[in-house]
Formats: sequence, structure tokens, C-alpha cells
Amino acid sequence: MAATAVAATPVLARRSVQSAPTIDAARLRNRLERLSYHGRTGASFADGVSRVAYSVADLTARAWIIDEMKQAEIAPRIDAAGNIYGRFGGQPNQPAILFGSHIDSVPGGGNFDGDLGTFAALEVIQAVQAAKIQTRHPLEMVLWAHEESTAFGVGTAASRIVAGDLKAGDMDRVWNGMKRSDAIRRIAGDPDKIETAVRGKGTWHSYVELHIEQGGTLDRAKVPIGIVEGIVAIHRYDVVIEGFANHAGTTPMGERQDAFVAASQLTLAVRDIATARQGRQVGTVGRIEVEPNSPNVIPGRVTMSVEFRDLSEQTLRELGEAVKARGAAIAKATRTTMTFTLASTNPSAPATKGVQDAIGRSADAAGLKAMRLPSGAGHDAQWMASLCPMGMIFVPSVAGVSHSPKELTSWEDCANGANVLLRSVLELDQRDSI
Amino acid sequence: MAATAVAATPVLARRSVQSAPTIDAARLRNRLERLSYHGRTGASFADGVSRVAYSVADLTARAWIIDEMKQAEIAPRIDAAGNIYGRFGGQPNQPAILFGSHIDSVPGGGNFDGDLGTFAALEVIQAVQAAKIQTRHPLEMVLWAHEESTAFGVGTAASRIVAGDLKAGDMDRVWNGMKRSDAIRRIAGDPDKIETAVRGKGTWHSYVELHIEQGGTLDRAKVPIGIVEGIVAIHRYDVVIEGFANHAGTTPMGERQDAFVAASQLTLAVRDIATARQGRQVGTVGRIEVEPNSPNVIPGRVTMSVEFRDLSEQTLRELGEAVKARGAAIAKATRTTMTFTLASTNPSAPATKGVQDAIGRSADAAGLKAMRLPSGAGHDAQWMASLCPMGMIFVPSVAGVSHSPKELTSWEDCANGANVLLRSVLELDQRDSI
Repeated sequence: MAATAVAATPVLARRSVQSAPTIDAARLRNRLERLSYHGRTGASFADGVSRVAYSVADLTARAWIIDEMKQAEIAPRIDAAGNIYGRFGGQPNQPAILFGSHIDSVPGGGNFDGDLGTFAALEVIQAVQAAKIQTRHPLEMVLWAHEESTAFGVGTAASRIVAGDLKAGDMDRVWNGMKRSDAIRRIAGDPDKIETAVRGKGTWHSYVELHIEQGGTLDRAKVPIGIVEGIVAIHRYDVVIEGFANHAGTTPMGERQDAFVAASQLTLAVRDIATARQGRQVGTVGRIEVEPNSPNVIPGRVTMSVEFRDLSEQTLRELGEAVKARGAAIAKATRTTMTFTLASTNPSAPATKGVQDAIGRSADAAGLKAMRLPSGAGHDAQWMASLCPMGMIFVPSVAGVSHSPKELTSWEDCANGANVLLRSVLELDQRDSI
Repeated sequence: MAATAVAATPVLARRSVQSAPTIDAARLRNRLERLSYHGRTGASFADGVSRVAYSVADLTARAWIIDEMKQAEIAPRIDAAGNIYGRFGGQPNQPAILFGSHIDSVPGGGNFDGDLGTFAALEVIQAVQAAKIQTRHPLEMVLWAHEESTAFGVGTAASRIVAGDLKAGDMDRVWNGMKRSDAIRRIAGDPDKIETAVRGKGTWHSYVELHIEQGGTLDRAKVPIGIVEGIVAIHRYDVVIEGFANHAGTTPMGERQDAFVAASQLTLAVRDIATARQGRQVGTVGRIEVEPNSPNVIPGRVTMSVEFRDLSEQTLRELGEAVKARGAAIAKATRTTMTFTLASTNPSAPATKGVQDAIGRSADAAGLKAMRLPSGAGHDAQWMASLCPMGMIFVPSVAGVSHSPKELTSWEDCANGANVLLRSVLELDQRDSI
């Protein structure tokens, strides 16, 4: 019956490539430029931003976006985890189509990661408003409160809470001297009722996220639209190496238990192990803390992260075993101890075939070339995959650069991606099941 | 004429091994234990101290020591660099014999490095007072304000200022958000008149410093007294490696410009180069800063210290050239850039033969075995070597551990060292030229 109602909607029936609603590319660009004021690390847009979740820059950016939503007559709603939702139109008995992204960044990050998908979501609703389209499903934009794992580490994304990942003690986690509950209060969430942020299956009709690729595949292939096949799994280890801090001038080379020499060997082992086998797996040592970190003291203790990513979780387990075995040999040779803790795992998340196909048809209808590819980066979409049909649209990152001030996507590609998001949402709106 | 006056002093003439004045071993131990309250990092003495120069712990320790000096009727005098001097006795027309050490520590340091020599100096004067000995030369103890290179880096020791090392802009150097001039004001120095801290040749008759060895030579040989032959030279480089910060999930292994992979290779190169040749040279990477230092970002920039030490400055130059050559090859292979800056050099400082011999005779007279050895660590003594005859007494460090909470010298060895310092000072007092 609902399907009949849709088919009868005259506005939908009139749509075609020529008359299709489009997003306002100039407004999208202007908003991305204005967002960069919040956390900018230099005088110009090209200096990028440090807008770590829960920072002052994050707070002021959120307040400004809430204003923008209100001006667009979209009533913002903040859930207990601090996620900002805004809903428009649709029939009250239908589940909403959800779309959005995040605005928090890594330290020294760029202007597009998350930001594009967030403002494209606002554009989708404003384009539908402007075209006076009545959709069958409510359209719901979302700004996920916290996506990057800088704040509180991996496994703490706000979208993950929505997907039901809540454990006792989660709110007591401390990062940078701040309790997670206090961090969530800073962004107007309610940690005492955090369980109200959890949403069940059936809450949403589907989820679509536009994001920059953050890799170089689309840029190299000169293809403007990527259809994501799935999001890779991540295994992250915390490694603690205990050597012996001693005077750098009086301890002969042969008597040292240098934790940083061991850490250096382990870092090269991670690279070698990730490179040695066929496939697209990657391995990274990105965080290192050395104690006491003084030029005249042999490092006594090193803590470091070791991260592997691949679509196959079996591959990740094998890489983990290989690096632990190498670590044991290095520890023995350097007379240090080395402990590996599997600090977090992100499961891989395949994108729903029906959503992939809807994105493909939307790109076709817009006259844009598209290709399918996996996502090497984690995204909020991976958590939504457990709640509803999920899909992601990628646009090119120039030279594949991301998590860097040099992160860049052309304004044309931004607009193309937002238009494909708009079309995909309207495509999905016409379907009861995907 | 002066020599005649000495020989005529009846107190000196009566001295022998049996009746020789001795330091108060219980008081020495008690003061070392009480000093550890200032900057202690845990509940017990064995937890060591973090008493970095100019820290609150350093300030309170200095205030307490000034009290101790006053109680011993030694008037403290603070020079423009913040060094604390205390003089006792002697004939007014004679230059003083200087002895002392420092009380600042590295972060996470031990209870003996510098501290022993400082309190032994106070013991020497108190022993002379107690024995009512009239020395020919004034006896002057010194607490050097800042010896460890943690604060403001290598080349900023307060004793180095006394030796005349002052350059325009030195007082404007910033460390930990603090200007060097403000740091010196914190300890009651006067940076506006810093040049008044400089002392010329002839100011002192001689300088003797008691210090823990900080290496394992005496401990392994089971010899209680070390006679230092000289202090090794240090060449320290600041190395900056520029790679490219990029997303750890989306950048294939083959396309990375990982600054920390390059830093790891350089660290192993430093170890290999220092180990490859005959000799006692050492090479250390002790300080490392990684940017942005996030588990999910490929390191884009690393700054690190590379330090070489040896008695031969020619060897240091060769080691520096070797590591720069390896660095260039590593940079090419990892597609990073690597810049080496020779941040500081400490010249080697031979100990004066006459002072070494006086220490040797003093150890003999005290019935203690002694051996000669170089110092792998830098000391305030190296700066005094440019002003007057210089010598150093070493006592054993258990297992050679230093710059660590586990730094340990037995109370018996502490007392033996202080007594040899006392005897050496009285030996030197009897000589006009050394």
C-alpha cells in the first residue's frame, strides 16, 4: 500500500536527469570553508585543522552547525551520546533514511574528512526542500559526535554506541585527563542515560554516507565516484617494551637494554610482515612514547601502537601472530621484554548490495563514471551496517592524501558526490526493501 | 714563604692515618635520604627522584641546603647563574680550593648522581671545622645550579657559564615554556648581570669533585675508589626527518613516506656504527618526538637526538660522518628527507696529573684500593678544567646503573669517597703548584 502511495506522488513521477533536484555547490563550498575556522592551524584553509572530538574547536563548530540547521528549518536533536540528528518530511509510519558523517578530525588533519559528508547531508535536505519534493520516508541527517580514534582510542566512536556497543565502565574511560562521561557532557550529551542513544534494527530504512576516499585509487583512475564494497577490519595492538634506563655515556654498547632499539626493530618488522604477502593489507606504527625521552639516557620503556588492516579478519590474525613471534625474538636479542595487548578490533563491514546498486544507478543518471572499491579507512557507516542496509559513496582525494593538512578534494568532486548522495537517497526512498 | 707557613702549622703536622679527620658517615647518609624528599617519585627512597633544574623540587631542595649550610656556619653566596658557594677558613691572600657537585637530576633519576658530591663537600668543611684544622687555602664548597642537560639542553650547565661560556641570546633560550633568564631568576640568580658569574683563571687553587661512576667498571673490579683520567667529549646531533603524514588505512605500503620507519633504521644504524669499531665509544638515540603521533596516521615527522661520546674528538667526527652517510641512504630509500644539526659539542677534559696523584695518595693513606679510568659522563669538573687544576674521584655504582631510580652506591662507598675527597683537599692544600 505504501508503494502505491509513492507511485502516485506526482512530484516523484516528474523527476528526470534534466529536472532532477541538485545541491547548491557554492553553499556547500562556503560551509566547508567556514567550518575550517573552527580548529584551523594556520592563516589559510590549506593549513588544515586540528578539531579533535570534544575540543573547543569541536564545540564551537557544533554550535555553528546547529545554527545552520535551524536556519534551514531542520530541528536539531542531540542524543545522549552527543550525536546531532535533524529530520525532514516523510510519512510518519515510515522509517527514516539516514545520511551524514562527522566533523571531528585527527590532530593536524584536513578539511574534507567527514566534513564533506556532513554538509552534503544538510544539502540533501535543503535540495529536497527547495524542490518541494515529498518523500515517502523521512529524511534524517546525522552529525556523528566523534569518529576519529584520537579521542579515547579506537572503539569509542559515537556511532558505535548507537549500534549498541556499550559496556560497563565505558563512561569512566579517561583520555587527556578527561573522563568520557565529562567529554560527552561537554557536547550536551547525557552519559547517565547513555543507553537511550542505542537504536535497534528497523529504526532506519537505510544509511548512506558520502566521504572522501582518503586513498589514491579514484584519483589515479580519474573516476569521480566510488561505490564502496565494504570497510576493512582493524586489529590494533598496544605494545609495551621494557628495557633498562641507564646513562648514555657510561653504559657500554654491549651492556645496554635499549627499549628504543627494540622498538625500532619491531617497527621494521611490522613493515616487512605487512609487505611480505600478496594483498592489500597494511601495517603501521603510528604512536610511540619513549621514557624518559632524554638525549643522555638510554630509553628504558617504550609504548607503541601496531595496527593492521585488511578486509579479511583471518589475514589480520595471521599478521598479528607473525609480529608477536618476531617481537619475541627481538626481545630476546635486545634483552628487553615485550608485551602485546590486542587493544581493539573493528570488524569488517560489507556494504549492502542493494545500496551499492542504487548509488551506481544514481551516478549513471548524473552522467558520472563510477567504480567499486573497498574502504581502507574505518567509517561510521560500518556501525550502521549492523542496523540497516548501508552504503557509502567515495569521491577522489588528490594524490590519496588524508589525515593531513594537504588533504584535498576538488570542489567539483565535492558537488558531484553530494549530488550522487541526493539521488541515491531519492532512489532508496522508492524502495520498501533493499 | 707560603709553603713555610704551612709546614709550620702544628695541626697539619700532627696528622696521620690514625688521627686523620673523617667525615660523619651517618650525617652524610641522613642528608642524602632527606634530599630525596625533594622530587621523590614514589613512597620510598628506592623510587628515585625527578628533580630537574628549576623545578619546584629543585627550589625546595636548594632552600633546605642553604639552611644546612647556615647551621654549619658556612655563609652561602649565590652567584648570578644561581650557583651556591660556601667558603671556610684559609689565608686571605690564597686562592680557594673548590669542591662540590650538583643536585639537579634527569627525569626519573636516582639519589646519588651529583647529590653525593654536594653533601660530601659540606662534610669536608664540617670535618675540618670539627678537627679545628687551619688550612692555608680557603676551602670553598659549591652546589652547581644546573648540570643535567634535561633543562635547556646540552651546553647550558651553570658551571659552563662560570668557565666563561656566555653568548648573546643565551638568556633568551626557551625550554618547557620558560625563558632561561626567568629560570635563573627562580633560583635567585641575576640574568641581567649574568657576566658577573664568570670567573677567570687563578680564581681557584684547584677543583676536586666526588661523583658516582655511573658505569660498571669499579663495581665489576670491586675497587672502591676511581681516579678519573679525563672526561669524554660529546657530539650531539638533532635530526629532523620529514616524511608524509597520511592515513594508515588507505595508503598502500609501497606508497608510504613513513618518517618513523626512517627513524627506526637510523636508530639501528647509530647502534651499528658505534659498535662496529674497536674502542669505548658509545652512540645513543635517547629522545624521539613523532608527529602527529596517532595510531591511525603514518608518521609525517620525527625529531630525534643522536649522541656519540668518546675521549677522542677525532673519533666523534668520524662517527658523525658515518651516521650522516647512512642517514642519506636511508632517506633516499624511504623517500624522506633527513637533516642533521650538530646541536652541541662538549670537549674532552683531561684531569690534571697532580690532582690525580693527590687523590691516589689519599686513597692509599685511607687504605682504599684505587684505579684510574675515564669518565663516560659529562661533569661540572670538565668546565673547571679550563680554570684550574682539576681532578675527580669516582665511587662504584652498583651494576653500573645511573640516570635511573635504581641508581645505587653503598653507604660505605659514599663515606669512603667523601673521606678520600677530604684527604685530597688537605693534600692539595699543602701545595702551591700542581
